[in-house]
Amino acid sequence: MPELISEHACFGGVQRFYRHDSTAIGLPMRFSVFLPRVAPGALLPAMFYLAGLTCNEETFPTKGGAQRYAAREGMILIAPDTSPRDAGVAGETDAWDFGAGAGFYVDATTEPWRQHYRMYSYILELHALVLRTLPVDAERIGIFGHSMGGHGALVLALRNPDLFRSVSAFAPIAAPTLCPWGEKAFAGYLGVDPEAWSRYDASELMRMMQAPFPQGILIDQGLGDKFLATQLRPEVFESACALAGQRLELRRHAGYDHGYYFISTFMEDHLRFHRENLG
Amino acid sequence: MPELISEHACFGGVQRFYRHDSTAIGLPMRFSVFLPRVAPGALLPAMFYLAGLTCNEETFPTKGGAQRYAAREGMILIAPDTSPRDAGVAGETDAWDFGAGAGFYVDATTEPWRQHYRMYSYILELHALVLRTLPVDAERIGIFGHSMGGHGALVLALRNPDLFRSVSAFAPIAAPTLCPWGEKAFAGYLGVDPEAWSRYDASELMRMMQAPFPQGILIDQGLGDKFLATQLRPEVFESACALAGQRLELRRHAGYDHGYYFISTFMEDHLRFHRENLG
Repeated sequence: MPELISEHACFGGVQRFYRHDSTAIGLPMRFSVFLPRVAPGALLPAMFYLAGLTCNEETFPTKGGAQRYAAREGMILIAPDTSPRDAGVAGETDAWDFGAGAGFYVDATTEPWRQHYRMYSYILELHALVLRTLPVDAERIGIFGHSMGGHGALVLALRNPDLFRSVSAFAPIAAPTLCPWGEKAFAGYLGVDPEAWSRYDASELMRMMQAPFPQGILIDQGLGDKFLATQLRPEVFESACALAGQRLELRRHAGYDHGYYFISTFMEDHLRFHRENLG
Repeated sequence: MPELISEHACFGGVQRFYRHDSTAIGLPMRFSVFLPRVAPGALLPAMFYLAGLTCNEETFPTKGGAQRYAAREGMILIAPDTSPRDAGVAGETDAWDFGAGAGFYVDATTEPWRQHYRMYSYILELHALVLRTLPVDAERIGIFGHSMGGHGALVLALRNPDLFRSVSAFAPIAAPTLCPWGEKAFAGYLGVDPEAWSRYDASELMRMMQAPFPQGILIDQGLGDKFLATQLRPEVFESACALAGQRLELRRHAGYDHGYYFISTFMEDHLRFHRENLG
């Protein structure tokens, strides 16, 4: 059972922080949960939010501005950390875009990362954990995220559409095998294995599918985002969706950058999108 | 003129961060401004938000969740830092509740603080500065804040009701001369001078007035706030308001603590209160 570290009243519900021993990671992990007021016995829809580089389980509840809408509409919000912490891997805190705070939601296969850097399996473990411990309706779980976490959300959803019934992203790394962040992370965690890289690239996955999310996918992207052209490349995912017959609403917003002032602006649109998809 | 450090699109407006050379402080200071979309030539109501211990000009725009409502209603939001920074005063970063990040919105009179630790005058300087540089309507400026900043907002408003036409607070230090935080800060910044202490105590100021804010004062206080009994003491301010014939809406909320999950929950209520007061 996860250990409750702290709980804060928030919009009539509670913002919680948990710690638990993760099987996938082999270390303690932290995650946050916003739990709206809920009638005894009721099961609520839930959203997983995957954060970006350098972030942790506090980023979303602190800066995302999602609780107000989630409280009103009765949605549970779950935000994991972005990597193992204090895994004891040499060099894990040397870079801001690899190692601690930069798990990239993959299961590493290379030494020395493969033992603990297994964030893909961790998110699935957390999915199962919240079903056992929180009033989450298994049929109404969605996933979204930002940047590295947008990549993670798309990949997790495309590979597990039975677990995550709705998906969206803010400024995702949409084609990680074709950008410096993704190349560095995948080379480091996965080595020289094109097949492994493809399994963690939302654009490559989408190209092999047929409209896996018939209700559509929502992506918001700021046009003032300095990472847009080199790192994010939503146009690659857009082409892949066209090929797969996948409906995609890719909204390009003049002036908006890569940060939480952008994300919080469109947060309610995403939550509304998911609520409608999840019913 | 203040120097624009950064600007982020946010809810159709812009979240800005400025630096300027402050006369009152004698050092560079930073502040943040949320500017909603505004028609050319129009003047908008504006709110000053004073933050609490350890916070800075980023706390409110990052965690407060105020921009959404301010954008919709056309309100400017101004958040200063909570003290001088790098003032070169020995020991200024030794404590979290005195010195850097803990200016207490007073003008220090003791050595070595008196040269730079002049946050009371600084807020008045900033009031004048934004009138010169932003589309702020001088007749529609209000002030609010949290904890140490709630104390600051009440004191600034009570002493300058012509400048700040509406006032509210989240969990303010409501009687600083009667609590350990206030005693430490006032002794350090003001020395042994009961009159000076009284001029910075909202409850003492209120006792000498006659209903300075006929439209009322709003205070939200969490009953799960661990600082309530020893440091905040809203009941002292409540008694002072009763004596002064001042209408006060002091809302006590079961379960809520001292942090931004509490503040963001009631943020829109405060902005609505001020918008109605300011017209």
